[in-house]
Amino acid sequence: MRPLILITNDDGIDAPGIKALEKAMSALGDVWTVAPASEQSAVSHAITLWNPLRIHQRAEQRFAVTGTPTDCVYIALSKILPRRPDICVSGVNHGANMGDDVIYSGTVAGASEATLQDIPSVAVSLASYKSQNFDTAAAAAAKVAASVLKRGLPRGVLLNVNVPKDVGVDAPFKFTKLGRRYYGQIVTENNDPRNKPYYWIGGAELGFDDIPGTDCNAVADHCISVSPVQMDLTHYKFLDELGKWTELNEAAE
Amino acid sequence: MRPLILITNDDGIDAPGIKALEKAMSALGDVWTVAPASEQSAVSHAITLWNPLRIHQRAEQRFAVTGTPTDCVYIALSKILPRRPDICVSGVNHGANMGDDVIYSGTVAGASEATLQDIPSVAVSLASYKSQNFDTAAAAAAKVAASVLKRGLPRGVLLNVNVPKDVGVDAPFKFTKLGRRYYGQIVTENNDPRNKPYYWIGGAELGFDDIPGTDCNAVADHCISVSPVQMDLTHYKFLDELGKWTELNEAAE
Repeated sequence: MRPLILITNDDGIDAPGIKALEKAMSALGDVWTVAPASEQSAVSHAITLWNPLRIHQRAEQRFAVTGTPTDCVYIALSKILPRRPDICVSGVNHGANMGDDVIYSGTVAGASEATLQDIPSVAVSLASYKSQNFDTAAAAAAKVAASVLKRGLPRGVLLNVNVPKDVGVDAPFKFTKLGRRYYGQIVTENNDPRNKPYYWIGGAELGFDDIPGTDCNAVADHCISVSPVQMDLTHYKFLDELGKWTELNEAAE
Repeated sequence: MRPLILITNDDGIDAPGIKALEKAMSALGDVWTVAPASEQSAVSHAITLWNPLRIHQRAEQRFAVTGTPTDCVYIALSKILPRRPDICVSGVNHGANMGDDVIYSGTVAGASEATLQDIPSVAVSLASYKSQNFDTAAAAAAKVAASVLKRGLPRGVLLNVNVPKDVGVDAPFKFTKLGRRYYGQIVTENNDPRNKPYYWIGGAELGFDDIPGTDCNAVADHCISVSPVQMDLTHYKFLDELGKWTELNEAAE
């Protein structure tokens, strides 16, 4: 049986990145797409609990859901797919998801939701807002996905792939840790047509810490970055240290 | 100078939990509250990038923002607070945030955003939807916050506190790792007044894995759970293993 592949993203089902991914992944298996009806960037792991969702079927194995990437994966697994997928691939995101971005990213969240349901998952991003090099990014994702299908992944770990804008399919892969990116802490203040103030969160990327071995450095070096991202957020090392905080269990003075 | 304390939550500025927290924290320092204007549960780290935000001043040091907990912390730091806070405390959430909940939780995300800005942070939840025991939970949070103000926290680590419903302020504290909770994978399907189908994500909590040392077990044992949560999501152990995936860098056949 060919692998069943679930594809989602956060740029929305009409984004060019997801179309490139569908094409590249169809060489590996039976592709089902369940993706947000509209752009959902920076929604992170948000789940829609307080509103109903609609499912719009676009083609035989292609569905738009009026929610977040997490909603899409949740609905796909419980209402749409004929069986459990063998892999979930989320992307190709238009713009990098490196370092702390991973925390905010809807693209990574789509893959995370599948990971939490014990489905091996890959998130893939094209590390430039300006580039349209989605086919190369999709080909890189397919290469990683083929390895995942062959080798599996440990429970609770997904692979986060970032592809530089200016490389071809033969670019070297680098296995990386997550780095640290900086954005301008900018909030634009303005007045609306009724002269009431509003605030808009924005800010261009300012750069990243130059740390060898990180996703940021790998992409700057024109390599395809592959980072293992874990779902267990416990900081085990500091957990040992916390044992010394004995004042919490002393009787109040 | 008294510590400057930033308080936020995800249940909204009018929730009883945040009022109990403001009261308890005011013993430790100068409290500023910047919280969502409406309930934001399960929004995770979502940031509002595509819409403007409004700030409604409710009192001298109390502001409602029409966005997510992440938005609130971002706006507080850049537009509202007179200086950098010494600590951020998010909560008291009505309902547990244990195990995988941490990934979806807006309460934890509020503390995370401050952590990413290198502000020591604590998230606190009352582990029951039925209990109104917010004063005990807020007292526990204040106790943990006092230790954090005295000792500090490592960069990129926050403390996630869960308080059982049926304990007093003298309940024992336990330092825990994150456990695994289960929810029913339930999507309710129904028709709207125009006979179009809609889908609603829901599902009651089914239980949790019985793993000694976890937050879930500690709360079940009537202890106040304190878990260190990290912002670096790299799975370092598997990163070593990935070095063996040499097929990614072999020339295509």
